[in-house]
Amino acid sequence: MKIFNKVAIIGTGLIGGSIALAIKNRKLANEVIGVSRKKRNLLLARRRGAIDKGSQELGIIKEADLVILATPVNAILELAPKISKIVKKDCLITDVGSTKEKIVLNLEKIFPNFVGSHPLAGSEKRSIAYADPKILEKSICILTPTKNTNKKALNKVRLLWSKVGARTILLTPQAHDKILSFVSHLPHIAAFSLIGVVPGQYLKFASTGLKDTTRVAASDSELWAEIFLSNQKNILKAIELLENNLKRIKRAIRKNDKKRLSLILNEGKIKRETLL
Amino acid sequence: MKIFNKVAIIGTGLIGGSIALAIKNRKLANEVIGVSRKKRNLLLARRRGAIDKGSQELGIIKEADLVILATPVNAILELAPKISKIVKKDCLITDVGSTKEKIVLNLEKIFPNFVGSHPLAGSEKRSIAYADPKILEKSICILTPTKNTNKKALNKVRLLWSKVGARTILLTPQAHDKILSFVSHLPHIAAFSLIGVVPGQYLKFASTGLKDTTRVAASDSELWAEIFLSNQKNILKAIELLENNLKRIKRAIRKNDKKRLSLILNEGKIKRETLL
Repeated sequence: MKIFNKVAIIGTGLIGGSIALAIKNRKLANEVIGVSRKKRNLLLARRRGAIDKGSQELGIIKEADLVILATPVNAILELAPKISKIVKKDCLITDVGSTKEKIVLNLEKIFPNFVGSHPLAGSEKRSIAYADPKILEKSICILTPTKNTNKKALNKVRLLWSKVGARTILLTPQAHDKILSFVSHLPHIAAFSLIGVVPGQYLKFASTGLKDTTRVAASDSELWAEIFLSNQKNILKAIELLENNLKRIKRAIRKNDKKRLSLILNEGKIKRETLL
Repeated sequence: MKIFNKVAIIGTGLIGGSIALAIKNRKLANEVIGVSRKKRNLLLARRRGAIDKGSQELGIIKEADLVILATPVNAILELAPKISKIVKKDCLITDVGSTKEKIVLNLEKIFPNFVGSHPLAGSEKRSIAYADPKILEKSICILTPTKNTNKKALNKVRLLWSKVGARTILLTPQAHDKILSFVSHLPHIAAFSLIGVVPGQYLKFASTGLKDTTRVAASDSELWAEIFLSNQKNILKAIELLENNLKRIKRAIRKNDKKRLSLILNEGKIKRETLL
């Protein structure tokens, strides 16, 4: 079932590449074109069958009826004004940025048919080499319409996400950023700060506990710095809550209070057990 | 190759059961017997072929030539004096406790042939139902001999760990506890405190990042409270380092300092990338 004629993916990395592959595999568009700063990415994307055509220049997207911005947050903000000068008037625009308030506020001013998206999929890896349409299957994709969002555009973007296998949920950009500060950004901050304090000479003793807990700290540091800074207020609050909880645990350990310590740990255990 | 005639496992849970299965599968002893508080565990251990005989009473271990204490830390300390009144004089004793200073200090006074062990294997699961001899293969087992340790006993216990597939490393109990405070205990504390602050209604948005980072917080809370309290000093220091690192990250976010933030995150990324 074709939903679009020509889809342009800006940023053919892990997420952009996975979406491109899903669209191609499920024949949701007549043509998928890719834009990347790196020629190598485009070659690999073509070789993997993720895109039909690729270019390092934005000019290639001028006939697209859907543009998906799949670059890091700051690049989305930087590219938007350039893209608006190239695309057709009725072109739909969506993005996959990890924070939504800044992006939606800016992009809905620039594009008449913008819909903010955030597929909760991905990994610590980057690059088209790791792209896999399966990461979208049974994932959640949050859409962040506002009162300014064109309903038809929203429905069409929503249909696309459904067709690649994601379950769509609508949230305000504000609610999205608050929720993500807890379920994604804070875990990354915990992982980065945790592995940072483990003395290098002890790493050879790492077993699955340390490895799992810090896996996401192998993620791109610049990309995540951008995400954290684009969700500054929410993240600062979330870090403070984490610091307070660490203090509670520290106090119970210092007081040798096994009962209290077990209780605090158990609050976490109960929540963790609801996650599969 | 038989190393022992009769091996007794005290605590036929995840680790005890996995060791028992490994000993049985590799025919390292003529007989493996199990002791557990719970009849159900013993039945399951027998059904899985982990033990030949089981009992809720310690009396069953009196002919053993190796006793492996595979209970939580406090139970090891409590059971040791009782066990010393039952076993033969030349019986070897080892344990799999997650902290070593307290246990070694106490148990080497009680048993002439005690060797502290800590196989770095396991998961957030408990009970014999999840026991699997494969978790020991290619794992690390830390042995913590002291100047009082009988060399022959050490060599025999070390041979056993090698034969079940573990790589053995010798450390002092003090070095063990310091290292483990970073590579195991602090990750658990980070996971417990992280999941504790995520609002319950946001958990449905959890993707692999949050799940991996908090997986170990599904571990038994009482068991881990005991571990933390038995390694109090080291853990308090490790938590303070984590708090300081969180503060550095928080400061860079508050100052909107992308360069500095990327640098701090990258310190973690570089370390994480050395772990497979």
